[in-house]
Amino acid sequence: MALGEFELIRTFFERSAGPRRALLGIGDDCALIRPGTGQSIAISTDMLVEGRHFFADVDPAALGHKALAVNLSDLAAMGARPLGFTLAMALPQVDERWLTAFSSGLFALADAHDCELIGGDTTRGPLNLCITVFGEVPPDAALRRDGARAGDDLWVSGTLGAPAWAVACRLQTEAFPMAGVDNPDAGSSADSNAGAPATPPHAALAAARLRLERPQPRVALGLALRSVASAAIDLSDGLVGDLGHVLTRSAAAGGAPLGAHIDWPSVPVDTALDHLYDSQRIALALAGGDDYELLFCAPAPARPVLAMLSRSLGLTLTRIGTVTGESGVQLLDAHGDRIDFHAAAFDHFR
Amino acid sequence: MALGEFELIRTFFERSAGPRRALLGIGDDCALIRPGTGQSIAISTDMLVEGRHFFADVDPAALGHKALAVNLSDLAAMGARPLGFTLAMALPQVDERWLTAFSSGLFALADAHDCELIGGDTTRGPLNLCITVFGEVPPDAALRRDGARAGDDLWVSGTLGAPAWAVACRLQTEAFPMAGVDNPDAGSSADSNAGAPATPPHAALAAARLRLERPQPRVALGLALRSVASAAIDLSDGLVGDLGHVLTRSAAAGGAPLGAHIDWPSVPVDTALDHLYDSQRIALALAGGDDYELLFCAPAPARPVLAMLSRSLGLTLTRIGTVTGESGVQLLDAHGDRIDFHAAAFDHFR
Repeated sequence: MALGEFELIRTFFERSAGPRRALLGIGDDCALIRPGTGQSIAISTDMLVEGRHFFADVDPAALGHKALAVNLSDLAAMGARPLGFTLAMALPQVDERWLTAFSSGLFALADAHDCELIGGDTTRGPLNLCITVFGEVPPDAALRRDGARAGDDLWVSGTLGAPAWAVACRLQTEAFPMAGVDNPDAGSSADSNAGAPATPPHAALAAARLRLERPQPRVALGLALRSVASAAIDLSDGLVGDLGHVLTRSAAAGGAPLGAHIDWPSVPVDTALDHLYDSQRIALALAGGDDYELLFCAPAPARPVLAMLSRSLGLTLTRIGTVTGESGVQLLDAHGDRIDFHAAAFDHFR
Repeated sequence: MALGEFELIRTFFERSAGPRRALLGIGDDCALIRPGTGQSIAISTDMLVEGRHFFADVDPAALGHKALAVNLSDLAAMGARPLGFTLAMALPQVDERWLTAFSSGLFALADAHDCELIGGDTTRGPLNLCITVFGEVPPDAALRRDGARAGDDLWVSGTLGAPAWAVACRLQTEAFPMAGVDNPDAGSSADSNAGAPATPPHAALAAARLRLERPQPRVALGLALRSVASAAIDLSDGLVGDLGHVLTRSAAAGGAPLGAHIDWPSVPVDTALDHLYDSQRIALALAGGDDYELLFCAPAPARPVLAMLSRSLGLTLTRIGTVTGESGVQLLDAHGDRIDFHAAAFDHFR
């Protein structure tokens, strides 16, 4: 492989531009962008590391999709419209087939959201992808984390838990002995468990893997929530942990304690998890992470608007609970009784 | 070490803000910034990998300085005023002493340039630092790479070659057998070379290392060049390679071939290299890289302004040659005769 750094950029990442979002794109010391009148620039950065955020054998097209998707998800959670992004990457070697697939996955999602690659950096090193994404939003309309108030409804988009289950199956952890689904002839550990659900169907696992590898950032929802939601966050570290960020910041902003009740029967657990124990479904849906759905708060009068919005976007929006004026998050069953659970947010250093 | 991801960010990277540049900083899904009236946002991203951009035993305070400095240097080359930056980092482990030193070096430089940390990401992985920096500049005043014209003077700030020499000494390459300077009692390979210069003084190597580890981004110069320079670039990959970028893009923009004459006797080679062979000094000053000085082009009538600017900034600005209307870069000696040299820009994948 004699492909050099600058040729690599030209071959895989410079594109003959159509209409451009940036005043100046790839190829100078800096890119230049300018927000529209009355708009501010929303910025988020995410670093993806092999072995932590993706498996070494991941489909590079899916990786290109996901590296940008997790960043677009942050824009969505802010109610910002995508403008552009920078891509910094360390590569162990120049593998043209890998780069072709990676950039195709990356640009397919970028084009779907009219988000232009405006700059970057490439170097040799252990595989590492760092995308910084830019959007625009009027500063007063931004969906911050700190606007939740006691009495607000708690909402979530889409379904929860499938990506975390796909990871658990892949890691073949003791709590999720689903390795057998890859090989229908192999004995299922779950089957040998008294009272355990049957071996999950392959279709469920395939669907869960798709959710893990191809998360769909809820950009259109974020834009629509600008005038509706009091607070929003995207679900990357697990529902309970991410809800905790919203409650902590909102309580600090409002000067009064906040907590939440979550109505477990209403939580939209992905149907791929139907065959699991309830304790497993709770753990995956509340603490699994990698969902990239939006969790948001809105006052009760917004319910009809949100029902209409759900229909117009073709995206399930589910009311899962209430923000309360007492610290702590409680999970309630169909009778309103507390369910004990342990759900810690994913932390890269614990 | 039980320090988690969020505690790590709070402890080392969240600061009780003084006056803030950002509308919204660390702690939400996105940061929000807004450029001043008539300004655009200049954006650059650089990824630093252990073993390629710095040695594993580098002083973490110096690393914190350098990670931001190389990004601020890109803003300087664009004539942009620093606003803020995001920091994404992969760390092999949480080392509180290392993080304390790293963040002190980072914030000392950030504060010197009034550049606010507005967001970031931390994860576990092979040491990797990715900073994306934001500045503001009126789009028409930006110092682009593509504005050079035949007849322009070629200028460079500061001195060249010292950082590359410090790297060469550390690597103890055959071309730069300077390892002996670390140990005055050891025999110097250079001494055993017929006609070779004497062992360099320790002071020279210390000065060169300082240039390597603590580059000073030429932000004030970049701002002052807005109305003076026709094109600019910062020297990261070596003078000849970076000059090539300016010539290529300017030729494409102007629709006519461009090249340059470099007057070797006028090139401001760092005095730390005084003891080296001329061939070594040429290689280090023209292709060494890591200088983080500004290379810029300006029409001849700008000479008096640049002389004044040099005095007011306390920074040497040297006219080193001319942009020509013929492709290719020629190095000329005191008699105007060509010097043969080979100088390829540093390329991470070659």
